[in-house]
Amino acid sequence: MTHIDSALLARFAAIVGDRNALTRADDIAPHLVELRGLYKGESPLVLRPANAGEVSAILKLASETGTAIVPQGGNTGLTGGQTPRAGRSEIVVSLTRLNRIRDVDCIGNTMVVEAGVVLQRAQQAARDAGRLFPLSLGSEGSCQIGGNLSSNAGGTAVLAYGNSRQLCLGLEVVLPTGEIWDGLRRLKKDNTGYDLRDLFIGAEGTLGIITAAVLKLFAIPKGHETIFVGVDSPEAALELFGIAQDLCGSSLTGFELIPRIGIEFTARHIEGVRDPMAAAHPWYALVDISSGQSAEAARTLMEELFIAADARGLVRDAVAGETEAQRQSFWTLRESMSWAQKPEGGSIKHDVSVPVARVPAFLAEADAAVLKAIPGARIVAFGHMGDGNIHYNISQPLGADTKAFLARWSEINRIVHDIVLKGNGSISAEHGIGQLKRDELAQIRQPIEIDLMHRVKRAFDPAGILNPGKVLTEN
Amino acid sequence: MTHIDSALLARFAAIVGDRNALTRADDIAPHLVELRGLYKGESPLVLRPANAGEVSAILKLASETGTAIVPQGGNTGLTGGQTPRAGRSEIVVSLTRLNRIRDVDCIGNTMVVEAGVVLQRAQQAARDAGRLFPLSLGSEGSCQIGGNLSSNAGGTAVLAYGNSRQLCLGLEVVLPTGEIWDGLRRLKKDNTGYDLRDLFIGAEGTLGIITAAVLKLFAIPKGHETIFVGVDSPEAALELFGIAQDLCGSSLTGFELIPRIGIEFTARHIEGVRDPMAAAHPWYALVDISSGQSAEAARTLMEELFIAADARGLVRDAVAGETEAQRQSFWTLRESMSWAQKPEGGSIKHDVSVPVARVPAFLAEADAAVLKAIPGARIVAFGHMGDGNIHYNISQPLGADTKAFLARWSEINRIVHDIVLKGNGSISAEHGIGQLKRDELAQIRQPIEIDLMHRVKRAFDPAGILNPGKVLTEN
Repeated sequence: MTHIDSALLARFAAIVGDRNALTRADDIAPHLVELRGLYKGESPLVLRPANAGEVSAILKLASETGTAIVPQGGNTGLTGGQTPRAGRSEIVVSLTRLNRIRDVDCIGNTMVVEAGVVLQRAQQAARDAGRLFPLSLGSEGSCQIGGNLSSNAGGTAVLAYGNSRQLCLGLEVVLPTGEIWDGLRRLKKDNTGYDLRDLFIGAEGTLGIITAAVLKLFAIPKGHETIFVGVDSPEAALELFGIAQDLCGSSLTGFELIPRIGIEFTARHIEGVRDPMAAAHPWYALVDISSGQSAEAARTLMEELFIAADARGLVRDAVAGETEAQRQSFWTLRESMSWAQKPEGGSIKHDVSVPVARVPAFLAEADAAVLKAIPGARIVAFGHMGDGNIHYNISQPLGADTKAFLARWSEINRIVHDIVLKGNGSISAEHGIGQLKRDELAQIRQPIEIDLMHRVKRAFDPAGILNPGKVLTEN
Repeated sequence: MTHIDSALLARFAAIVGDRNALTRADDIAPHLVELRGLYKGESPLVLRPANAGEVSAILKLASETGTAIVPQGGNTGLTGGQTPRAGRSEIVVSLTRLNRIRDVDCIGNTMVVEAGVVLQRAQQAARDAGRLFPLSLGSEGSCQIGGNLSSNAGGTAVLAYGNSRQLCLGLEVVLPTGEIWDGLRRLKKDNTGYDLRDLFIGAEGTLGIITAAVLKLFAIPKGHETIFVGVDSPEAALELFGIAQDLCGSSLTGFELIPRIGIEFTARHIEGVRDPMAAAHPWYALVDISSGQSAEAARTLMEELFIAADARGLVRDAVAGETEAQRQSFWTLRESMSWAQKPEGGSIKHDVSVPVARVPAFLAEADAAVLKAIPGARIVAFGHMGDGNIHYNISQPLGADTKAFLARWSEINRIVHDIVLKGNGSISAEHGIGQLKRDELAQIRQPIEIDLMHRVKRAFDPAGILNPGKVLTEN
C-alpha cells in the first residue's frame, strides 16, 4: 500500500474527531467491499464528516497533500465506484452523517436533503408531507441520496418521473480544493450559464462531493393499479407497452419485463414470493398505472388497457393486484429477481439499454450468441422495458463450475455489449462506470468524447485527488 | 473592425461555396441585429454550411487561424447571444441549411432533427406522425432547434414537459477544433460518463456548435381544455395553481399569469385579440389541462378545478374555451403580450424566476420598488407562473420620454434583480445570458461558480474562437 504517514492521517482525523475517524480494521472493513464482492479495496482511514464544512476541510487538506479521497454513500453501487482501490492508500469519506432533511416545501414541491439521507427516509419525508418523491430502487433501504445523484440512479419509476438527474433542481458540492459551491437552487427555470449541476450528477464522485440537493416532489397519485400479464414473447410485451403508452401517457408509471425463469428463481428462493398465476407463461409484463385524479380513473385505465391488449391477442393471462399487499408482492418479486439468482450459482451481469423498439431483437440476438458460447446458460433477462433498460443476467448452467463460469465474465460481456452497441445502446444504463466498465468505456466511445471527459476532470480536479481511477483512467 | 484578410475570407467562403457565403452588406444585415434592437453587430461574412461536415471544416479553419465564429439559428434570441459584436470582425455561421428531419420513431418516441429545423416544422413533423413535440414559444415560427437547445428554451409547456434540456436525448456537436462528437443517442437511460450533452445545451454556442439532436416525443393528448379565470390577486392565482396542481398532476399543462394591463394592451394593439370577459379583473390565470385519456376526462378535470376554486372564493369570473379557435385566441393574447407593449413606448424587460410560492411576494416588492423609482411606470408582469417564471416588463409612464426611460434600464434591472436574488431566484429564467447579462452574472454568482465555467470554456475551446464574449468574458 502506498503510504500515508501517520502524522498526515492524524491531521485528517482531527477534522472530524477521533470518534468519526475509523482506523480499526473491523470498523473499516464494511467500507472496503461492495455488494457483489467484485471489488475488495484497502484504506488506512474512513472519515465520517458531520457537515459540508468538514468535507471542505478534508478536501482542502487532501488537495494540499495530494491525498486520494474516495467518497462513499450507502455503499450499494454495483460498479466499484465507491470502493477504494487496493494498494493505493486512499482515504474513504463516508457521507452518512450528513443526514438532515433541511426542508420540505409543498407549494414549490421541493425538498432539500443532505447527501447521507437514505433514499427510503427521503421517500417517507415526502409522503409525510403529502407528496411523492418517486425515485425507487431495490436498495432504497440503504442507498443514500448523494450516491443516487452521483450515479444518476434510475430504478422503476424512470418511465414516468425520470432518473435522478431529472429529479434534482440544485446541488451543494464541495470541490476538490475544498471550496463549497452553493448551487442549492429551487428553480424550475434558470438559464444562467453552463449546467454545472448535471455535470456533478452522474460523475460518480470524481468531480466534487455532493453534500446536499434540492429534490423535486410530486403529487401522490390518488389511484394506483398494478397488473401482472403473461405474454408469449418480448415482441408481445413491446406491443403491450406501445398500447399502454398511447392509452395511459404519463399515467403509465411502470412497465417491467420478466422472463419465466425469473418467476421460477424468485418463487424458489425468495421468501413470500409465489408464482402469481396457475399456468406458466414464457414472459411477463408488470404494468403500473397511476392516476392523479382518482382510484376509479386508474382502474378504468387498467381495464381499458386489458381490453385493448386482449383484443390484439396479447394476453395469455393477467392478474390484477386487488390489494396494496398484492401489488407490493408483485413488486417484491420483481425487485428480488437479481438476488434470487445467487443460490443458482454464478451470474454474469449486464445493465444495458437499447432504444425501446429494439428490445426484442436485442434479446433474440444476445440469447443466441450467449447460448452458443455457453450452452445451457440460464438467461435471466429482466428489467425496465419501458426505458429500454434490460438487466441481462446470465446464471451458470446447472451443475457447471462456478469459478470457471465467472472467469468468462469479460468474454460474455464483450459478446453482449457488441450486440448492444450495434443497436446504438448503452453498456451501462443505470449503474454507471466505476471501475468495472472504465476501460471498456474508453474503448467503445469516440476518442474525442473520452478526451472531453478527461478535460473536464482536469479542469475540476487538476491534482487528481478525487476518486481517482473511477470512470476515467488517471491522467 | 479587426481585420480578417480577404484571402482568409475566401478560404472560409470556399468551404460552403460562393452562393452560401454572404458578403454583400444587404445580405448580411439581417444577421447583425436582433429582435429587440438592443445589439447591432458587424461581420464581414455570413457562412451558410449545408451539413455538419462543412461546419467542421469552418471550425477547423477558424481554430487554425484564430478566427472568431458566431453560430446563429433563427436569430430570435433576446440577449444578444447570437449577434456578432461590433468592431471585432467575427464570422457568422448560420445553421439554417441544416434543416433535415432525419427520422421520426413512433415506438421509441424520438425524432432526429438538424439544428436549422424551425421549431414549428419540428412540431408539425411530430404531429404528422401522431405524436407531440411539446416545446412551444412565441417565436416558434422562426426559431430553430439548434438555437432552442443552445439557449435551453422554455416556453409555455415547461410545466408538464420540461424545458429544451428535458426534451433532448442526444446531440451531434461540432467542437471548436472541427471534431464532430456523435452523441446522437436515443436512450432513455445511459449512465456512461460525464453528461456532456447537458453541458452543450444552454451553453449558447460557446462550447461547440450543435448540428443535430434527438428529441423526445409524447402522445398527443386526447382531451384539451383551456380556461381563462379572473382573480383578485397573484395570491389568489397562486392558490388556484396549488389546487390545479394537486387535482391535475401532470395533466396540468399550462398555468400563465396575466395582469389587467396586459389585457388592455393586447386588446388595444393586437389584431383579433379582445377581452375575454365583460368585466375587468385585476389579474387573470390562463389554465391549460390535457388528458391522455379522453376529451371527457379533460372536461371533467376542468370542471372539478372550477368547482374547487370557486368553493374557495378564488374565481371572480371564468371563461372556458369552447372551441379550438377560442382556446387559440386565449393563447394568442398571452403570446402577444410582449409585442403589445411596443406601441406603448419603451419597455424595460426582465426574465426572472423565483420559487413558485414566492411569486406574489416578489411582485409586491418589485412593484413597490419600481414605482418608487419611476412613478407612473406601467408594470406588465406576466408569464409562466407554474414555473415561477415572470416576464417582469415595465412600460414607460404615459407621456414619458422614451429615451430617458430606457436609459434607466440597468438601474431598474438592478432594483428588480436584487429582489429576485434575495428570494433565491434567477435573473434569467429562460432567455439565457448572451451579452445582455454577462457582466451581471459574474457579479451575482459565487466566484467559484464563474471560475468553474471559465475552466469548462477553456477545456472545450482553448483558443477562445467560439462565440467569444458571450455568457462569460473572454479569458
